[in-house]
Amino acid sequence: MSRLLLDISVSLDGYVAGPDLSMADPLGRGGEQLHEWIINTAAWRAPHGHEGGEHNADDDVVIEHLGRIGATIMGRRMFSGGAGPWADDGNANGWWGDEPPFHHPVYVLTHHEREPLALGDTTFTFVTEGGIEAAVAQARAAAGARDAVIAGGADVAQQGLRAGLVDELQLHVAPVFLGGGRRLLEDVPPGRLERLRTVESPAGVVHTRYAVAR
Amino acid sequence: MSRLLLDISVSLDGYVAGPDLSMADPLGRGGEQLHEWIINTAAWRAPHGHEGGEHNADDDVVIEHLGRIGATIMGRRMFSGGAGPWADDGNANGWWGDEPPFHHPVYVLTHHEREPLALGDTTFTFVTEGGIEAAVAQARAAAGARDAVIAGGADVAQQGLRAGLVDELQLHVAPVFLGGGRRLLEDVPPGRLERLRTVESPAGVVHTRYAVAR
Repeated sequence: MSRLLLDISVSLDGYVAGPDLSMADPLGRGGEQLHEWIINTAAWRAPHGHEGGEHNADDDVVIEHLGRIGATIMGRRMFSGGAGPWADDGNANGWWGDEPPFHHPVYVLTHHEREPLALGDTTFTFVTEGGIEAAVAQARAAAGARDAVIAGGADVAQQGLRAGLVDELQLHVAPVFLGGGRRLLEDVPPGRLERLRTVESPAGVVHTRYAVAR
Repeated sequence: MSRLLLDISVSLDGYVAGPDLSMADPLGRGGEQLHEWIINTAAWRAPHGHEGGEHNADDDVVIEHLGRIGATIMGRRMFSGGAGPWADDGNANGWWGDEPPFHHPVYVLTHHEREPLALGDTTFTFVTEGGIEAAVAQARAAAGARDAVIAGGADVAQQGLRAGLVDELQLHVAPVFLGGGRRLLEDVPPGRLERLRTVESPAGVVHTRYAVAR
């Protein structure tokens, strides 16, 4: 059976986005620094239509991850930045472009019903009933022999952890203090994890993978 | 000139002590798990009068640290768990025993004046004037050719970071969720750090040392 990962970039002070989040600044002040490491890898650049990029330890982490994942779960804010009815969402097709980088089914948790949206070879399915459990069940089924991943944001990540659904956690800790913003790990259930692997990145990021006791 | 380190064990969810801190449970619920890695090293056990202990990567981290540090700064709560006038502190000699493990000068930040306290070959000096800047200046002077360290707790650590006094940060991240408690990195100044070194511990702890831009 397919496993559920939580895989996310986070600042050293524990934030997945900086202060003063807005539609114009969806990662918050300084938040783009969390993603520099991945944006500079060849494995990330190619499917996004960009040339070049580094072949390094960061790239290996991305290649491994892309090969493993068959379905992605995300929150509404990660999809479009919006909230409320879709008719009022000025970014209702999301900010992932006409050729989103997923290339597998994506499940978006939202309170607002909507037909699935196909963009390129990625289909976004909007899960409005059954919460995180339903989204994870659908993603696991869709992932087949591969694994499913919660990609963000913090709310959905916390829902997955609190529901005891997460098998593995991979944190990409960027060498940055954001000083505030949206915290990833807040009110999660106490417990031990097992460290599986740490990769030291040339960008100063520490990638660590943990098994989460369920 | 001697450098200022901040060196502290922290849970994966960012706490230096668990929920429900009290004099009876000074590390809070589950907090003792943050320190298991160090308590099991030979380098830590010997000066505390315990036999045995592991010679491993964790031990190397402790040996390196002990050889480097010439003075320690801590908060009142880390010293004794108390607050308020010393006459009312039921633990006024602290909980570090008759032979404290420091073997160098220790500076305790407190609002309550007191003569220095010598226990074994460790002298505790109580800094009541000039705040973190004064404590750091005294510790640096006392450390001589060695470095000074802020050992905790979270309040003093944050004071050091906010005042821009910290040169290096070493985090010992334990593979544990505490689910709440005293958070280490809260409202710290935004900025980049430089990762200097990561050590993977057999106990599942990730020790990472960073240079902090000042």
